[in-house]
Amino acid sequence: MRTVEIIDQKRNGQELTPEQISHLIEGYCSGRIPDYQMAAFAMAVVWQGMTIAETEALTRSMIASGDTVSLKEISKPTVDKHSTGGVGDKTTLVVGPLATALGVAVPKLSGRGLGHTGGTLDKLESIPGFRTRLELPEFIATVNKVGMAVASPTANLVPADQLLYALRDATATVRSLPLIASSIMSKKLAVETDAISLDVKVGEGAFFRTLDEAREFSKIAVELGSRMGRKVHCMLTSMDSPLGRAIGNSIEVKEAIDTLHGNGPSDFTELCLSAATTMVSLLRPAETEASIREQLEKAVGNGTAFTTFVNWITAQGGSREVLENPGLFEKAGRKITVPAPASGVVQKTHALALGNLAMALGAGRETKEQEIDHTAGIYLERKPGEKVQKGEPLATLYTNREGPSSQWEARLLDAFEIGPGEPYPIPSPILEGSPPVA
Amino acid sequence: MRTVEIIDQKRNGQELTPEQISHLIEGYCSGRIPDYQMAAFAMAVVWQGMTIAETEALTRSMIASGDTVSLKEISKPTVDKHSTGGVGDKTTLVVGPLATALGVAVPKLSGRGLGHTGGTLDKLESIPGFRTRLELPEFIATVNKVGMAVASPTANLVPADQLLYALRDATATVRSLPLIASSIMSKKLAVETDAISLDVKVGEGAFFRTLDEAREFSKIAVELGSRMGRKVHCMLTSMDSPLGRAIGNSIEVKEAIDTLHGNGPSDFTELCLSAATTMVSLLRPAETEASIREQLEKAVGNGTAFTTFVNWITAQGGSREVLENPGLFEKAGRKITVPAPASGVVQKTHALALGNLAMALGAGRETKEQEIDHTAGIYLERKPGEKVQKGEPLATLYTNREGPSSQWEARLLDAFEIGPGEPYPIPSPILEGSPPVA
Repeated sequence: MRTVEIIDQKRNGQELTPEQISHLIEGYCSGRIPDYQMAAFAMAVVWQGMTIAETEALTRSMIASGDTVSLKEISKPTVDKHSTGGVGDKTTLVVGPLATALGVAVPKLSGRGLGHTGGTLDKLESIPGFRTRLELPEFIATVNKVGMAVASPTANLVPADQLLYALRDATATVRSLPLIASSIMSKKLAVETDAISLDVKVGEGAFFRTLDEAREFSKIAVELGSRMGRKVHCMLTSMDSPLGRAIGNSIEVKEAIDTLHGNGPSDFTELCLSAATTMVSLLRPAETEASIREQLEKAVGNGTAFTTFVNWITAQGGSREVLENPGLFEKAGRKITVPAPASGVVQKTHALALGNLAMALGAGRETKEQEIDHTAGIYLERKPGEKVQKGEPLATLYTNREGPSSQWEARLLDAFEIGPGEPYPIPSPILEGSPPVA
Repeated sequence: MRTVEIIDQKRNGQELTPEQISHLIEGYCSGRIPDYQMAAFAMAVVWQGMTIAETEALTRSMIASGDTVSLKEISKPTVDKHSTGGVGDKTTLVVGPLATALGVAVPKLSGRGLGHTGGTLDKLESIPGFRTRLELPEFIATVNKVGMAVASPTANLVPADQLLYALRDATATVRSLPLIASSIMSKKLAVETDAISLDVKVGEGAFFRTLDEAREFSKIAVELGSRMGRKVHCMLTSMDSPLGRAIGNSIEVKEAIDTLHGNGPSDFTELCLSAATTMVSLLRPAETEASIREQLEKAVGNGTAFTTFVNWITAQGGSREVLENPGLFEKAGRKITVPAPASGVVQKTHALALGNLAMALGAGRETKEQEIDHTAGIYLERKPGEKVQKGEPLATLYTNREGPSSQWEARLLDAFEIGPGEPYPIPSPILEGSPPVA
């Protein structure tokens, strides 16, 4: 099989066979196919696209490039949850315990944040003692003991994706739905959960900027799951504004704890209840979603959700004390309150600008090597729909970085739009879901 | 300037600036920009194309990657001639002396053949003693002495093209008009002749398969010349059939000699007279083409053309004896006459199949490292339009290779189409020219 002929076929818009695609991925991972051929191929895919059969073959080849994680030692039905990344997205910390409280298992391998979106592992590591690095037997044992675990992948999971993603990043070939879908789904499908719930973020602070793109991706993701015998559900949610009020690491954990106690921001609470409903529905198609949601609300109300959370975090070494008394979280050296420059109703809080500002304060990393300041972040004292009087706090910035705060304050104000009119309820972030769980 | 952003812009169909293009070519030649970024860029160009301004910038950057050849030491006006490559294409051997006989200078750097098309240097090297490797001062001195010279480039001419071409060959990005045009024209424009005459071959044995593609290329080539202050003319000629009767090396030299004596095949003679007319016209726009053609025909008739040829060849060390007595050319060990399997009129002689067969007989090289057998080749006893009786010779094969001749004979017969009907004159290969020389 000649690689240049495969590239030529894709260039000419012809459909490739699974054998041709596997030749490319195997050859690339083994070093037989050089970077430059893979780069030309990737650009040809950006150009010509891929059929679902090709995307399936690509996803399968990528999974086959490494190990898969068998979960057959987990007794309960399993569900994974993944977000395509947003600002203030601490959802896993709440939906994991919620679904677990209802008796399903949530074994989740997770990643770190890069750029303006945070990573679940970084947030969890702001809890003193929490260990994200679990070998597979401990990972499984933790799920069997407390119903869930969230860890960094220790297995050699989809090495093809690491290679390909770095190449795509350097060759302007990131934006291609088949390449995006195979990248995301190969990593999810390599962990053999029974079901996968995807939170597909849409908007200026998200990877997908338009609803159409997110819908197209969701269709591919659900179809890939179905072709591999796995239930996949996509919920499309807005990422024009950050989720909840907290952006950072320890302050997001605190907000997650509030939410598990039933005191979370309305937008984030709604997202968590919907996502957890889907996760459980995927495994219990006989139950109505309304009944599942009721059970979830009860788990919040009677404290089961929070208890599940504490059991999980402590099982991975996290300190029980800070969970029970979040005031004990280490604090940032500087706390800057930014007052509203005018009275009115907040109309917009731009997610991308706020994500970038949080990164500038130390809460995120611009390069993979950068260290994160777990205490840094932004707390939005006002969300879209809420009234503010001139001089009242709009947001609070937390940082340990030096230098004058005026530039940060200016950036914060630039990210806010305040207008006239009446206040309104904080909008729900949920845009639409993929067709109801079968 | 970030390379990935430049690739992204091209990917999105935006026009690049000359600075961006020069950043790419300089960076690639110096090794700062890796192969994989250049490969992705090349595929994005195949996809999105390039404006003429971008193609000009690319061509200029490629020229700037190496040395240029100044011809200011040549007293006469200079013209170069280039063919995009065909089967049986010995045109330079005839048009060079023809134009030179009329008093213009023809300083030509040439290449070797690869694949089914031959190279002028290979043909010339079948003349005992002929040296193709001339240092620049000798090259110039030869032109000043005998009016022309044909040599391999000794200067560091357009190194960017060598790098880029090898990359494009391995990444299915050869077929892109801006990339093709900048590759061909950068090498021509790096040698500072006053004018350039291009023979753009079209057909199954040529690089350009369709007239449309050849026209599009010609438009770009002429425009590039004009933007760089050089007169460029394109003649579009058919390469469905080989040019003339001889395919090989020494047998093509013999046919060129016949043609210079006025005894060449009609199709090849017509092409040579037309091309030489254009070459001279480009430098003497005041004269009519009819008058130039008349002078050329006279130069053939009175022997000046052949004398010019002999003076040139011997100035580069070639043996005068074989030119005056081509029977002295070394002969192939095997001579295989292939008889016509049926009576009729030859309708087609497929150029690609015959070029490949000549290569199989030893006349060409499949890889750059292969050696050429100068005595090998094919002589077409019949051309399209000519009558043949069953059993009469259709073609003669010359080779030193061993093995049964049946496979070669079968391939030869496959390349011929014989049909019923009346004989007709051998068709002229000239399809059309670019707008007349201004």
